[in-house]
Amino acid sequence: MATDFNAVRRDRLRAQLDGLEVDAALVTRLVNVRYLTGFTGSNAALVVYADGTDVFCTDGRYRTQATNQVPDLERVIERNCAKAMAERLETEKLARIGYESHSVTVDGLDELSATAPSAELRSLHQAVEGLRAVKDEEEIALLRQACAIADRALADLIERGGIRAGRSEFEVGRELDGLMLTHGAEERAFETIVAGGPNSAVPHHRPTARILERGDLVKFDFGAQLGGYHSDMTRTLVLGEPADWQREVYAVVQEAQRRGREGLRIGADVRDVDAAARDHVKEAGYGDEFGHGLGHGVGLEVHEAPTVSYLGAGTLAERMTVTVEPGVYLEGRGGVRIEDTLVVRADGPELLTMTSRDLTAL
Amino acid sequence: MATDFNAVRRDRLRAQLDGLEVDAALVTRLVNVRYLTGFTGSNAALVVYADGTDVFCTDGRYRTQATNQVPDLERVIERNCAKAMAERLETEKLARIGYESHSVTVDGLDELSATAPSAELRSLHQAVEGLRAVKDEEEIALLRQACAIADRALADLIERGGIRAGRSEFEVGRELDGLMLTHGAEERAFETIVAGGPNSAVPHHRPTARILERGDLVKFDFGAQLGGYHSDMTRTLVLGEPADWQREVYAVVQEAQRRGREGLRIGADVRDVDAAARDHVKEAGYGDEFGHGLGHGVGLEVHEAPTVSYLGAGTLAERMTVTVEPGVYLEGRGGVRIEDTLVVRADGPELLTMTSRDLTAL
Repeated sequence: MATDFNAVRRDRLRAQLDGLEVDAALVTRLVNVRYLTGFTGSNAALVVYADGTDVFCTDGRYRTQATNQVPDLERVIERNCAKAMAERLETEKLARIGYESHSVTVDGLDELSATAPSAELRSLHQAVEGLRAVKDEEEIALLRQACAIADRALADLIERGGIRAGRSEFEVGRELDGLMLTHGAEERAFETIVAGGPNSAVPHHRPTARILERGDLVKFDFGAQLGGYHSDMTRTLVLGEPADWQREVYAVVQEAQRRGREGLRIGADVRDVDAAARDHVKEAGYGDEFGHGLGHGVGLEVHEAPTVSYLGAGTLAERMTVTVEPGVYLEGRGGVRIEDTLVVRADGPELLTMTSRDLTAL
Repeated sequence: MATDFNAVRRDRLRAQLDGLEVDAALVTRLVNVRYLTGFTGSNAALVVYADGTDVFCTDGRYRTQATNQVPDLERVIERNCAKAMAERLETEKLARIGYESHSVTVDGLDELSATAPSAELRSLHQAVEGLRAVKDEEEIALLRQACAIADRALADLIERGGIRAGRSEFEVGRELDGLMLTHGAEERAFETIVAGGPNSAVPHHRPTARILERGDLVKFDFGAQLGGYHSDMTRTLVLGEPADWQREVYAVVQEAQRRGREGLRIGADVRDVDAAARDHVKEAGYGDEFGHGLGHGVGLEVHEAPTVSYLGAGTLAERMTVTVEPGVYLEGRGGVRIEDTLVVRADGPELLTMTSRDLTAL
């Protein structure tokens, strides 16, 4: 249901219209419409005007849902929402319409231009994504719940002996997915990774029929979705007594991950946060085996701004919610990744994922 | 794993390059890349050349996966695949590059233009989606399996007494989701609809905490995903003895759905198929309560070409796989929809969803 915080978010976008040199913002990217209105359907558009007379559009399938979720806005019911909103803007003779050039397709822009020929169409430059990078407390509450569901699901899976030699990655992954639903997830946040033995050395492995064996590192990368918000956590366990090389790699990643988490400070450059973790991995001699960035923003999307990486840019702000997930992958043998989701806070990062980061042997 | 049928599909696209007046096709829409190569990762691009020297691109996370899934193509490893392929095309001095204007964003086209300034960029006009509308037998086999999983999951749910007064839509939906995973689904095909009582009158209802009651119509719209292919089925049940109005509406929808299925003939105009079902609903006096199209193609996407609707255009071809899903929705009281997934065949449509369409009272 749309509430005050949706209106506050729209006002934040409205405050940027001048700087973006547009008279209104036509928001068509669904996840952004959801953020600004609370609407969860699969077809919608929103116009945010300088004067606050915002208009929402969806199609007839969602008439009732829109009445419930977006009671505070004028609602237009049309199948082609972007076009309907462009027609309206044309009628209103607005000179400069902001649109989402990172989301609108080339064909989509052609249609907008043909529908609103009087207006100049200008990019909004991902303004809504910029707003979304900094979470409000309503969002953090949902992220906290989503992370708690994932924590409980993994704890349950371990407790019931679900992670054991003789089971396939498929089986274990499905049980974990089911447990997330049992614990209240709307759905899983993304395709659950269960990667055993050599497969754990593949950063983004999809579960296979491979049977888990004693001595395997088993990597779980998974999350729950709640209220549209995603949790994201990785843990790597060992089946049986850990070998020396497994202990060594684990200790390196664990310490790098701790340093990365400690680097999450207001004003920190994302490249410095990445370096805080990466330098430790490099010093331990595994720099080449850590081939991805340290982390990413997480919220209505699993991957969103900011990018916490040597390839990123910019600094962290209060209430950004990001992952910290260094990994070391030894091809053909196995890999370790440890990932948490955290909120940047003035008094140090708030951990949302609570499962122990210590080496767990099952 | 990429196999012969992926190569056959690429050859079909290749055969269209002349007609599209391009020298190569840059395919960046992921689901289309998957169709043409078998690659299932989240970042990729493909160039299909007139001379058959096709090139595939993904990033370093998927190096091993790409080796396994796309062994038959030259593989480039780059983070920004579209840009890397455009650079290559620029080097090769191709005059006309086809790109997916319905999928590439405005910002994306700017980048392509800047990267390949010598070439003319021309729309592919959804050529790959056009190919995908007609399934090959490999695809139909996966769709058949996905539909069978959904059939079994619903049968299990009924058998174990999962659909009963006193449970919430949420609970029932999660159990159904879990059963699909148990029966081998990779994931559910889309967010499962469980809609009881008045909620069944909302065509696209999301499950809520509403408790099912005796006398409710309960509508299930759900599907399983397997090998990337989606099943899609709707059944509407009654809790307890059906009321006369429920029997009446059910009979109307059941007969309309039968007529729609029978309309699935090679060469049939999609508007005529829609009309075959819709006319029966209209004659019964419920024309205004059937506010959506009759069906849609289903495959690597839940909704894809062709659109089987009064708003659609074109005719059916052999091996198109479509849904037939008329519904009658009485606001505030309840609704009935019956939906199957079927393959258009020379000797009449092949049903993939097998659950009984007779009125079932629980």
